[in-house]
Order: sequence, then C-alpha cells, then structure tokens
Amino acid sequence: MPKDNHTYKIHFLPEDKLVDIEEGITVLEAAHKAEVYISSICGGVATCGKCKVVVEEGRVDSPYTPLLAPEEVAKGYVLACQTKALSDLLISVPPETRLEEGQILVTTEAKEARPGMVGGLVPGLEYSHDPLVKKLYIELAPPTMEDSLADYERLRLAIMLREGIKLECLVAELGVLKAMPRLLRESHWRLTATLADWAGTREILGLEPGDTAKNLWGVAVDVGTTTVVAQLLDMASARVIDTEASYNSQMKWGEDYIQRIIYATERPTSGGLDEMQRTIVNDINELISALTLRNGLRPEEIMALCCSGNTAMMHFLLGLDPTLIRKEPYIPTANSIPPLRARELGIDINKKAPLYCLPSVAAYVGGDITGGATAIGLDQQEALCLFIDIGTNGEVVLGNKDWMVCCSASAGPSFEGSGVRHGMRAAPGAIERLKITEDFQLSYKVIGNRNPRGICGSGLLDSISALLCSGAINKSGKFVRGTTPRVRESEEGLEFLLVEGPKSATGGDIVITQADISNLIRSKAAIYAAISTLLEAMHMKATDIQRVYLAGGFGSYLDIHNTITIGMLPEMPPERIHFVGNSSLAGSRLSLLSREAFSNVKEIASKMTYFDLMANPHFMEEFISANFLPHTNPDEFPTVYQELSRGVKAMD
Amino acid sequence: MPKDNHTYKIHFLPEDKLVDIEEGITVLEAAHKAEVYISSICGGVATCGKCKVVVEEGRVDSPYTPLLAPEEVAKGYVLACQTKALSDLLISVPPETRLEEGQILVTTEAKEARPGMVGGLVPGLEYSHDPLVKKLYIELAPPTMEDSLADYERLRLAIMLREGIKLECLVAELGVLKAMPRLLRESHWRLTATLADWAGTREILGLEPGDTAKNLWGVAVDVGTTTVVAQLLDMASARVIDTEASYNSQMKWGEDYIQRIIYATERPTSGGLDEMQRTIVNDINELISALTLRNGLRPEEIMALCCSGNTAMMHFLLGLDPTLIRKEPYIPTANSIPPLRARELGIDINKKAPLYCLPSVAAYVGGDITGGATAIGLDQQEALCLFIDIGTNGEVVLGNKDWMVCCSASAGPSFEGSGVRHGMRAAPGAIERLKITEDFQLSYKVIGNRNPRGICGSGLLDSISALLCSGAINKSGKFVRGTTPRVRESEEGLEFLLVEGPKSATGGDIVITQADISNLIRSKAAIYAAISTLLEAMHMKATDIQRVYLAGGFGSYLDIHNTITIGMLPEMPPERIHFVGNSSLAGSRLSLLSREAFSNVKEIASKMTYFDLMANPHFMEEFISANFLPHTNPDEFPTVYQELSRGVKAMD
Repeated sequence: MPKDNHTYKIHFLPEDKLVDIEEGITVLEAAHKAEVYISSICGGVATCGKCKVVVEEGRVDSPYTPLLAPEEVAKGYVLACQTKALSDLLISVPPETRLEEGQILVTTEAKEARPGMVGGLVPGLEYSHDPLVKKLYIELAPPTMEDSLADYERLRLAIMLREGIKLECLVAELGVLKAMPRLLRESHWRLTATLADWAGTREILGLEPGDTAKNLWGVAVDVGTTTVVAQLLDMASARVIDTEASYNSQMKWGEDYIQRIIYATERPTSGGLDEMQRTIVNDINELISALTLRNGLRPEEIMALCCSGNTAMMHFLLGLDPTLIRKEPYIPTANSIPPLRARELGIDINKKAPLYCLPSVAAYVGGDITGGATAIGLDQQEALCLFIDIGTNGEVVLGNKDWMVCCSASAGPSFEGSGVRHGMRAAPGAIERLKITEDFQLSYKVIGNRNPRGICGSGLLDSISALLCSGAINKSGKFVRGTTPRVRESEEGLEFLLVEGPKSATGGDIVITQADISNLIRSKAAIYAAISTLLEAMHMKATDIQRVYLAGGFGSYLDIHNTITIGMLPEMPPERIHFVGNSSLAGSRLSLLSREAFSNVKEIASKMTYFDLMANPHFMEEFISANFLPHTNPDEFPTVYQELSRGVKAMD
Repeated sequence: MPKDNHTYKIHFLPEDKLVDIEEGITVLEAAHKAEVYISSICGGVATCGKCKVVVEEGRVDSPYTPLLAPEEVAKGYVLACQTKALSDLLISVPPETRLEEGQILVTTEAKEARPGMVGGLVPGLEYSHDPLVKKLYIELAPPTMEDSLADYERLRLAIMLREGIKLECLVAELGVLKAMPRLLRESHWRLTATLADWAGTREILGLEPGDTAKNLWGVAVDVGTTTVVAQLLDMASARVIDTEASYNSQMKWGEDYIQRIIYATERPTSGGLDEMQRTIVNDINELISALTLRNGLRPEEIMALCCSGNTAMMHFLLGLDPTLIRKEPYIPTANSIPPLRARELGIDINKKAPLYCLPSVAAYVGGDITGGATAIGLDQQEALCLFIDIGTNGEVVLGNKDWMVCCSASAGPSFEGSGVRHGMRAAPGAIERLKITEDFQLSYKVIGNRNPRGICGSGLLDSISALLCSGAINKSGKFVRGTTPRVRESEEGLEFLLVEGPKSATGGDIVITQADISNLIRSKAAIYAAISTLLEAMHMKATDIQRVYLAGGFGSYLDIHNTITIGMLPEMPPERIHFVGNSSLAGSRLSLLSREAFSNVKEIASKMTYFDLMANPHFMEEFISANFLPHTNPDEFPTVYQELSRGVKAMD
C-alpha cells in the first residue's frame, strides 16, 4: 500500500471493537474487518438501507440518500456502505442494524425409532442405522501355515463378510496398509476398522487396536444462506449430542445469495470466490470447535461431515464457480458432489474424514430439499404430499412415492426476519407468537422471556393474520386508517405499533410498516403461486393434497391456521399441515447415520422433476392473484372469506 | 561425521568413476555410491564370492577368504564387500564382476488380434481393448431452459451412456469440477474426458477441449528381481511403441530378494526399506524417461502405469513391510493393492495417473504369475495346463478353467545367469545357443554377433543337455575325466572349456565349472520337483498335462527338447511345450489395455490355491530324486534314457 495514504482508527460501539483502515475504505468494509456484523441485504450498493450506523465522533464523506429520513440524518445516521472516514471515527451500531447474537432456535425433532433404526421427521419413518462412516470391531484368526492369507486380504475378507460388500470395492490408502502388519500383531488380531462410503467403494480410513467401535463422532451441517447449523452426532448410537448455530458470515456480502454470487464472480481477480469459501469454511470450523470443546472432544475425533444446503451454498463451500447459477438457463457446475476429504476444503476435523454433500436437483433446488424430502419420507408416501421449505427462497415439492415435481420461488427473506423493519431471526428477544384482541390489545411471547427487540418469522405470520382479522389491514394488505391508534402515520406512510419504546429492548418502538406487510405478502404470494403452478402443471387441485410438510427457520412452531388465513397455503383441514422445522439439517443428519437414507437422498435428487417458474407464464399470473389476503379469488379460500366477513376469525 | 575421519578417493575402472568415501566404508559400498554395478549375490556377507575386484593402486584392509584362489590374491583380487581402503585406491572391476550393460533381450510376443481386441501370448487368446485409463471424445448438447442439467451431470450422463456404468460410481476430484464450467463452454461442448478405473468406481482424471482421444500413453512394467522391463504403450491403439529394460538396482543389496528383505528390515533405523523403495522407483523413472525421450513424449503425458512383479518386489515398490514374507508362516502385508496415484510413490508421470499393481496369490506367488496366467489364458483353457515362470524363483501353476494350484520353488538364479561362473543375462555378448558335436567341436550363437563374454539361460540349458549327450558329464552331472581335453582340472575341480581366451571378449577362458553344473541341476530339479508335487497333490500324472507354457528371462527362445533332456520338464511330446518369454510383462500390458484382462488377473489371484512346498514332505523327496540327469527314475524319462543309452541323442 502507498505510504502516503492515511489510515484511520474506527471504533465500533457497543461491540467496543477497534480497527485501522486505509483511507477510502467504507465503514461497512471496516465493520467486516472488525468482525462487527452489520445488516446489509443489498450487498453494499445503497439500495436496502439496512446498514444504518450513527457517526458519534469524527468526520465522514457520506453522500445524500433518500433511504435516510431527515431526522435520522440530523442524529448522525449514515449508510455504512456509502460512508468513508475522513478522520478517526467513533461509530455506534444501533440494535436494528446489528446482526443479532445469541443462540438461534433450531427446531428439528426426530421421531422415536426402533433399535437399529434412526427416525425421520414423520412418525413411523425410519431408516436403518448404518452410518456413512462406521467402525467395526474385528477379531481375526492369526495366520498359520495352513491359513497363510495376506494381512490385507484377511482383514478385507472379515469386513466383506460383515458388510456384505464386494471384495474389489474395498480400498485403503497406502498409509493404512503400511501401518497394518504391526497393528494387527500388536493388537493380537483384535482391532477396530473405520470404514467410509466412498462413491461406489468403501474405504478403510484407519485401524485402531482393540475395540473402539463406540467412539465415533460425526457432524451434520445445514449450510443455510442466513444461518449455519451444526449438529454433533454420536455415530455409534445414532444420538444427537449437541447443536450449535451461527449466522452465515457471508451475509456481509449480501443477505441474498444472488448478491454473494455477484460479489464472488465479479471480483475474480481479488479472489471473491476464495473469500466466500474461506468464510463459510471458517463458520463451520467455529461451530465444530464450539461443539467439540463443549463435549470434551478434539476436532480430530470427528470422522465424518455431511453438509446440506442450497445449490449456491454448496458451490461456495466447495469453491465451485457459481456464475451460471444466476444466468439463464441457470446451470450449476455440479448437482451431485463426490465425497472428498473435509481437510481439502480446510475443514479442521480428522484428516481422513470424508465430507458428504447432499445432491441438488437444479440451480434453485438444492440438497436442503432432497435431504428434507428424505427426512419426511416423501418418496415413501402413498398420499399426495406437498413439501415446502421456506428460507430466503421458498422451495416447493409436490409428489409421492411415484413422482415428484419441484420448483423454487424467490420468496425473499421476510419470514427469516430480513426485509422487514424490525424483523429478526429466531433468537432471544424475538417475538415468536403474537395475538391481537378485538380491542387491539396485544399479547406476545418473546424468545428468552425478555423485552422484545424484534419479531421473527412465526411472529410475523401471526401478525399479518391478526392484523387482517382485526381489520387493521384490508385484504390488499393496506392499513386501514382509524381502526386503532396503533395504526399511525410515519415518514414512510402508515405503520402499526407493536411494542412501545419503553417496553422494547432497544428503547425504540417496534412497528410493522406498510412496506413490511407488502414484503410479507409478496413472500407468501410467491409460495402460494409456486404451489398453484405445480398443481396446475400436474392437473391437480389443492384439495388433492393430503399432507403438507412445512419446513424452515421460522423459529418456534408455526400457527398452522394462520398460514391458511393469510393465504400462504391453500385452504385445507389444518390437521393435514405439519410443521417439521429444519428438515435440511434432519436430512443431513439422517444421511450421515444411514447409508439407506443417503441413498434415498440421491434417488430423490435424480427422480425430482424441476419446474423453472421464471419460464412459466402461469406463475406470474398466480403470483399477482395471490398478492392479496388471502387471495383475489374467494373461491379458493371460502372458509377464510366467510370467517373474515363474519369478523369472527378465531385467533386461538 | 567426525572431522578427524579420513576420506579417500576411489577410482573405478573401466567405468572411470571417482568417488570420495569415509574411512571404514567397503569398496562394495563405494561402488554403489559411484553407481558402478558389481555382482553381489549374498548381499555383502562374503559367501558368494561374486564381487571380486582388482586393487590396482593403493593400500587396503582385506581379510583372508577361501573364495579367492591364491593366484587371484597374487594378482590383487579382493572381495569388494570385505575390503576397506587405507588410502586412495584405483580399483578395476573385471568383466565377470560387472553387471553387464547393454540392451537386454525381452521376449514377449503378443499374438495378432482382431480389431477392438488385444492379443495374449497364445494364438486365439484375445481380450477386449478397453483400457484401465481411457479417453472419450464427447459432444454435449449445450444447456437450454428446457434442458438445464448441471454441467457435471450432463457430462456424467454422457459418460454413463457410453461406458454403461452406474452414475454414482463415477467420481471426479474437486479440481476437475472447478475447471469444468469454463472448459465446457470454451470447447463449445466438445471435449475429451480421461477416465480411470478406480476399484469399484471410475474417476474422471481430467478434461481437455476438442478431440484428443488418440493421445493417450501408458507404461506397463515387469518389476523383476533381476531385470526391470518397461513397455511404452499407445493406449488408444493398443500398440506397443517401445520397450526398455535395465537391471534392478536393488541388486547391490543382493541378487536374491530374501537378502534384500533382510537388508530392508534389519536396518529399520537407517531406512533400509525407504532406500529399497527409492531405488526401484528410480529405476522405473529412468526407464520411463528413456522411453518418453526416445519417442518424443513428456513424462506428464503418461496417464497410466501398471506394475507386475513378485510379492516382495511389490512390497518394495510400495514401501510395505516385507519382514513377514520370509518368516513362517510367510504372510505378505497385502496381495491386492488398491489403485493409487503413481506420484505418491515418486514416480514421475502425470500427477493424476494411477498405478495399478497386479495382485499376488501368496508370499511366493506374485502378480507376475497372475498376470502371466492371464497372458496365456490359463483360466480359459479346457485342457490341463502347466505354466512355469523361471526367474530367481521358479513358480509353477497347474490347472485349467476350473481350478488352479500353484507353488514356488527356490530355483535359484542360475537360468538368469547368476550363480554360474560365466553366466550372464541375455544381453549382447551372451552365448544364447550352443551345440557340441560328437568330436567335441562347439558351435554357438552370441547375442549381438560378437565375441562372447558369458552365457545366458538358453545357452546354459543347451550346454547341460549337450554335455550330457556328449558324455562329458554323467547322469549325476559329474564331469567324466578324459572324454575330451575340454574337460580339465582347475583350482576348484573339473571344468569344461567353452571358449578359449583369445576368442572371448574378456580375453579369459569361458568355462562351465562343476559347481555351475550342480547349481543348474539344483535349479532344474527344484522346478521338476515342484511340478511333481503339484501333480501328486492333484492325483495326476505328467501325461495328463496337455500344454506347458514356459516363461522367463532365458534370453532367446529355448530349445524345448533340451528342457526334457535335462529333466527340467517331464517327458512329453515337445509340441505340447510352448516358450512364451516374459509373460509377467505381457500380463501387465494386457491389464493396462483391457479392463477385462485386469479383471481376469484379479479373478485368477482369488482362484489360485497356493501350495507351500516348504511344508510339503513330498517336495524334498522329489527334489532329491530330480538331482540327476534327467532323473533317478528311468521310468519317468523312458525316451531320454533310451536315447542316452544309444548315445545317439539328437542335438538339433
């Protein structure tokens, strides 16, 4: 760097983090450098207005932006992505701008299973407990003149008989062979072999003297666009030991993965893709480090890793070029990834441990969906099922044991708490349940039982439904002036006061804005339109659907009734709808614990037919019709219409 | 090293090589350091007397040895392995001590094959031309909105359809996936994939734009105890391009591999095994370097390597512990070796290129035999066959398509020219054919049509037969005094003068000694006893054998008649006996060119039943009975006995 460049010290509050930056670097970039996590949906191009910070001390170069209200400007608010230091700075990051910290709620409850089996997310769904990496305790007969089989053949034969595999499909690296003769003899021919699935073969990863078959750990990871969740598994007993979640640190380059693809691919010379990969690998390493530390293990004791995630996340994780994912005709580099050593990516577990990635179906339907479909046993269902995973995208699968069609709608991250003024993820301080009484009194439940600082997916769903039922918004989602003093004017139009400043953790009011409502309606409309499009393509009606499995990071369990009230799901008896939580993580866990489940995932990936909604004229029509609460067509929601017209919509 | 140690300069003639050594180092070790190759069968323990050199100048510390005749001592002869320098030295290495240089004869003639097939060593034996590493030229349809398969899946599907393989068994390393999207598009979807067999899977080793399917080279290697032979193959056309052979440089640690195992395993701290491995890897690298240089290729263009050799050689090559091979109950570390990257061993070819090793049957029956059995199609023969590979050990296989039994006899290296005073390998200067007329006139043929400097395997076989028929030796192999002036006294007893000094390349007489005859008789007796033992074990007689395939590095084609005359093979119509040359190399070549052949080799390895001769009381009896020319039992050789008694044995 040129010597005559100024460097400035930027001090971030309340994190109390200090960083030296070069002149010309934005405050957002300085925050990344300081590891202060700041919301930024647009990826730093001044369109989302999420990265508001307050300049407490110092001089800055910050251009005018319509995204800041005049009173905000007066208070020293700037957009971090557009602001450059002209001196040392003291910056305070307001709560609404901070990426929240604290334990993220992970809902993924495996059902009970019989001995020797592992349970899926649906009662009665079981896969055989037969992990992708397993340990076999073996007692060999020592060689004699009459039985002079070579060491490796003696061992292979024993494994072959136990595992029922073809001899030639069992392999080992040279290092294992080199150490084998001594180990066999020193262990008196009693040893434990660690065996891994490796595409069509099985690899002997290592040998240990004696019986260590009970000591085998693996980690299943859901690599989400927003949240990364890792689960420590006792592979021998198929028990979940612990779960840890964190934000995906790639968020500093945009909350939407399309923004990240742009960053990764338009900065090829500055190694954008490498940076993106290092970041997610680092997140996974930190989760594993936390899990192992907390449970008295060393990272080298982790012998297997399984990752599920959308196609873009898998490309980032593996360092595969994601450019074409976002360009017509939307072609991933690879849907299915051969096993590889986790160490090859810099993941800090046992150097021989394989990484398995759940296969994708297409650019916008990833391993989170094939894994999720396995976790609910979609391919084993006689009944017609609908499987919906709501994250930044909303992926929808329709089908049963005979066929499966799927698609992906850009739902937007509203239900993950993004794109909503006071939206946040399901972490402590988030309103997760909300009711509005007829006299506009609110009751709500906050994660961690504290003062709220925002509202998460399940709370937002409740809010829209309650606002609609209470009459505070109409069927177009527009606030109705005068229904209650809680509907009030703001700089940006009408808004609804959820929590008054004194009762919130931030000291400021928590509101839902007109724009928030519009975003949430667009999200639910996208999902509904996707469902309609698939049904239409299959010449089916919503009433044909016998079961709905709803997955996603909403937080706690969803109020199923409300998903129908707002028109996210088609009208149907609510008992047909099941919330299954993080099915991607469950798919990853099941794959690691059951070769049968992993094989199912692969079969599902090859069996699913992908419908591209962009190329589908029906979708846009449906989307427009669904931009209404619950829908423009009353015939599709007769009961909801009836209840709304009676004004007696139950709010349980 | 201590500073007060002396170093001496040792100058070797006629190589004119100079080396500095520390005091206390033997002349043999100095020769190794100078890369002067000196015969040493015993591995440097003063028992073979092969490492005679002449001290021309300088003082040495050399103890008394009965292995040197007084006149040799008078001329300055010492044993290199027992001699240490006390000053700078000028050492001359006499021709009989030098490991000969020059092109070694490699006999391995593939039979003609139909298009799309590769021929074995037997007429009509063919395997499909379907190499272990192959190139496929592929034209892909570019993706569209209607056909939005991921790049990797598009490619895999095309390969799957062409090769008829299961999708999940096709794998690729991350590097290939990373480069793929750009390569597919820049090549306009016309590309060549290099595909390798990898245990139960197939791996895409690399992708190249356009059609390069014709450019694919591999090397097949026979890793012999004495000789290493490498053959450059055009894998696309199944053509042998060139062959190169050299001595196995491990010979400096003993001509017998048991000596080398002792060296490798009894010097664990000084890295004897590593040294042994580096040495053979270096030999292979030099052969490949010579082959590629001569044929305008770069070593990186070699995409596949296949090695066959006995079990000990494979252990050395791979760096596997060979200790237990020589200790009861004789257990190899591994008989079958999974494919590995040749680079992992330091073999300097393409970094992705696999090394395939032909599988062994047991400690003393290696991949040279399973490969050889495939090259002669033993497992496809209706007729009862006998397959014999004569090297340092003599391996014998009896069987047909239904069953195979095998054993190994320590034949000793006589027929490779070792353990015989003027024995040498089939290189220029070797007598390869020899006849003795009734009046004891000799006629012989020398490789390279020059003055002889020794006699190779085929010539030795002829000699024994001719000496027997001429009456110069009796049925016990003892010289008969007075039959001819060529039978003469020497320091070590009687000997037979083959070539007088003036007619030889060395200037000295070329003789066959009584000890040589005894060694050769022991070699042939071991082979005959092995055959008898197998026959006995199977309750069969020699007359049941319908075909004999004789393989080995004898040099040129053997005189089949003589193999019976001396009692190496049982008496049978000579047309049943076929000399097939280096069948190990042929097995290695066939495996590389034909997945079918390789799969055959593996099946043969698992099918062969090994008989340990050490544990067999019948063998020693048979061996003693066979220590006679042709045999102690006239009933086993009626025709030979008849001919000998008539004194009219034909000598063709």
